[in-house]
Amino acid sequence: MSVQIITISREFGSGGREVGRKLAERLNIPFYDKEIIEKTAWKTGFAEEYIKNQGEQASARNWFEYSFSARNQVFGMSPEDFLFTKQREVIEELSKQGSCVIVGRCADFILRERKDVLNVFIHSDISFRKKRITEIYGEPEHTDKMLRDIDKKRAFHYKYYTDRTWGKSQNYDLTLNTSTLGIDHCVEILAALYHSALNKDGE
Amino acid sequence: MSVQIITISREFGSGGREVGRKLAERLNIPFYDKEIIEKTAWKTGFAEEYIKNQGEQASARNWFEYSFSARNQVFGMSPEDFLFTKQREVIEELSKQGSCVIVGRCADFILRERKDVLNVFIHSDISFRKKRITEIYGEPEHTDKMLRDIDKKRAFHYKYYTDRTWGKSQNYDLTLNTSTLGIDHCVEILAALYHSALNKDGE
Repeated sequence: MSVQIITISREFGSGGREVGRKLAERLNIPFYDKEIIEKTAWKTGFAEEYIKNQGEQASARNWFEYSFSARNQVFGMSPEDFLFTKQREVIEELSKQGSCVIVGRCADFILRERKDVLNVFIHSDISFRKKRITEIYGEPEHTDKMLRDIDKKRAFHYKYYTDRTWGKSQNYDLTLNTSTLGIDHCVEILAALYHSALNKDGE
Repeated sequence: MSVQIITISREFGSGGREVGRKLAERLNIPFYDKEIIEKTAWKTGFAEEYIKNQGEQASARNWFEYSFSARNQVFGMSPEDFLFTKQREVIEELSKQGSCVIVGRCADFILRERKDVLNVFIHSDISFRKKRITEIYGEPEHTDKMLRDIDKKRAFHYKYYTDRTWGKSQNYDLTLNTSTLGIDHCVEILAALYHSALNKDGE
């Protein structure tokens, strides 16, 4: 089959989200990232239950506080598991609507049965990531901690929900280093793979 | 700087050597693999010492037997370390002669100070590798064991001499799955990167 959907997992600060956004623009297809997926999951999944208990002014943050403090279970699941389930449904639904780029949220694992999904991991050298994070967040004194904590969290989240190792090259169709190849170059490589033949039949 | 040399590390049976050979043909630059590097190392490095002791009919195999049995040290090193040292010299020498493709032998690590070397890891799904190995070696009953043993040996060898993890995406500029992307497609991706800009200045 040919590549219709591209999923991108990425190290924090590697520019993986920017690669995804530019790629979607270049290919003129929808781009979905964490914010969009969480917002949709919230709108379609969380609201009813929470509103029943807390009223319509609730935010996702409040919902989390509520979930943890009030009873620590949502529909018989932990809040994290419930969130994952809802996000999975959103990703499955969005992927049915046609070609797209999806960043993060274990989308590679969630769509693993599809034969037309190209799975990409984006990483980069530590100095490149530090520079980018400081530029974006402007807090150089916290950069090292952010790098360490966020990637650790991503790796743990991925392992927990997929039982796979995050960033292990064998889990992806290709992995790219943005610091040595350049963000625009990575976009080019991936754009050239869109609609190209992809063999996921194990033959 | 722009890409002049491409090193390829690869899982056994993934077709990484074929990718390298086709790539070198396409780019019309020399191709060096394990056999060529070992042969050159043997010619330039081992022969003198061994011939002195064993005569001119010596083969590399005999040399190994001799090294292990006779005294287990060559010029004060273990035979493996001596081999690695000689291969490193050969790789350094070959890389000075101009553009080339080098498969295996920790070339990515040996040439790590150069700013014009693109490091690639090639892997593929297990069914693809089994099929390839059986086609090449024709011994289906030994395929599983070969796969397991040879990759384990490569990973250990790489770790021992480089202190890095073999196949970890972060150690390479890009990694490619030959079973899903196809060998010819991988050649195309890499050929397009030859002479392209590569930033290894850590900026």
